[in-house]
Amino acid sequence: MEKRAVVLLSGGLDSTTLLAMAKDEGYDCYALSFRYGQRHEAELEAAQRVANKFGAARHVIADIDLRVFGGSALTSDIAVPKHESIDDLGDEIPITYVPARNTIFLSFALAWAEVLDATNIFIGVNALDYSGYPDCRPEFIEAFQEMANLATRIGVEGTDRCKIHTPLIEMTKAEIIQAGVALGVDYGMTVSCYDAADDGGACGGCDSCLLRRRGFEQAQIPDQTLYQS
Amino acid sequence: MEKRAVVLLSGGLDSTTLLAMAKDEGYDCYALSFRYGQRHEAELEAAQRVANKFGAARHVIADIDLRVFGGSALTSDIAVPKHESIDDLGDEIPITYVPARNTIFLSFALAWAEVLDATNIFIGVNALDYSGYPDCRPEFIEAFQEMANLATRIGVEGTDRCKIHTPLIEMTKAEIIQAGVALGVDYGMTVSCYDAADDGGACGGCDSCLLRRRGFEQAQIPDQTLYQS
Repeated sequence: MEKRAVVLLSGGLDSTTLLAMAKDEGYDCYALSFRYGQRHEAELEAAQRVANKFGAARHVIADIDLRVFGGSALTSDIAVPKHESIDDLGDEIPITYVPARNTIFLSFALAWAEVLDATNIFIGVNALDYSGYPDCRPEFIEAFQEMANLATRIGVEGTDRCKIHTPLIEMTKAEIIQAGVALGVDYGMTVSCYDAADDGGACGGCDSCLLRRRGFEQAQIPDQTLYQS
Repeated sequence: MEKRAVVLLSGGLDSTTLLAMAKDEGYDCYALSFRYGQRHEAELEAAQRVANKFGAARHVIADIDLRVFGGSALTSDIAVPKHESIDDLGDEIPITYVPARNTIFLSFALAWAEVLDATNIFIGVNALDYSGYPDCRPEFIEAFQEMANLATRIGVEGTDRCKIHTPLIEMTKAEIIQAGVALGVDYGMTVSCYDAADDGGACGGCDSCLLRRRGFEQAQIPDQTLYQS
C-alpha cells in the first residue's frame, strides 16, 4: 500500500519545504490548509500553487472561523506589529500568536489521517526561529502524539502508532531554505507575511518577514520574495 | 475574579447535565457548540435553549465543516444504524464515531479558554454508556490535559494549570439523569438522537436513543423525550 501522510500546508516558506521533504521521503501527500479567519487569502492561494507543484494527492482547505474567539492580531482587528530590524523582536509571546492554533490544526490533521487510514502527519514547526509560540516546541509535539494515539481507533485497536513528523524543528531558517532549494522549491511561490497584500506582496516588517529575510541572507541565497513596493 | 469555564454543549442529555453541574459549582459558563456538518440542526437549537436556561455568560456556535473528511455516519450520507433493542449494540467502534471529534472540540475549547484567561474546560464524556468511542476514555482525557498544558501560554509562563473536567465519566446514564433532575434539568429541552427530525423528534432506534431510553427506565424517571410518531 502507498505511504500516506497528511501535510499541514500554510503556503509559507516552512510548510512548503515540509511538503517537498515529505514527497521526497516517498509519501503520498494529502495537503491540509485552513481558512481560519486570517487577514488575507494570499497564503491560501500560495498553498494551492505549492500543492499543485508538488503533486499532492489531494488538497483540502478546511473552513474554521477562529475569529469567534479573537485574541490574536492574525484573527482580529489588532494591528500586526512591524519592526525596523530583527533585533527589535522581543522574547515574549507576540500578539500574532493565535491561541491553540497548532493544536487545532493537528486535530484536524488527525481526523483526516484517521479517515485516510494514514498514521503520518507532517507539521512545519520550528523551535529556533519560532517567534516564541508555545505550540512550536518539541515537548508540545510529543504530548500531542501521545494524546493522538489514545484519541483514535488506533488507540483502541492497537494496530499501529500515529507519528507527528517535524523535520524542521531543529533547523535554522537558513538551513530550511537550503534544504528546500536542494529539493526544487521556488520560494517566490510562497507567502510568509502576516500582513500580505492581496497579490501576496510581503510587508517586510512583521516578525515573519524579518525572520524570512534573514534566512535568505544567512543562506546566501537570493530572496525571491515579492515585497510590497 | 469570577471562575470562568468553557463548557462543551451539544444540547444532548449529557452535556446539558454537565452545564447544570458547572453552574452549580459556581463557574461562569462559556458554552461552546459546533456546527460540524451533523445531520440536523435540532441539537443546536436545543443547545441554545439550554444555554439560555442555565444563564451561560456566552454561547458560541463554531462553524467547522468536518464533512470535508467524511468517514462517519454523522457527517456523511452513510445511514445511521438502527436497532430493535439495546442488546443489539455491538462492541466495535460504530460508524457513528466521528474521527477525532472530541480532540477537535477540546482544541477549540482550549483556544477559547486561553482567550478568556480561563483554565477550566468541561466535557460530558462518559466511559460507561459511551458507545465505544476511543475519545471518551479517561486515558484520552488525561493525555489531552497534559498536551493542553504545553500548548498554550500557560505552558510557557507556568502560571496555572489547565484542567479538563469530566464529572460524568464514571456515571451511568441513569445516574446522570438523576443528577440532572436534582439540578433542575428538564430533559424535554434536550436532543440526543443521531438522526432527529427537524423539530427535534427522536428516532428511538439509534445507539444514542437506546442508551438514553434505558437511562430513564433505570432511573425510574418519566422519559420526556419527544419521539417521532
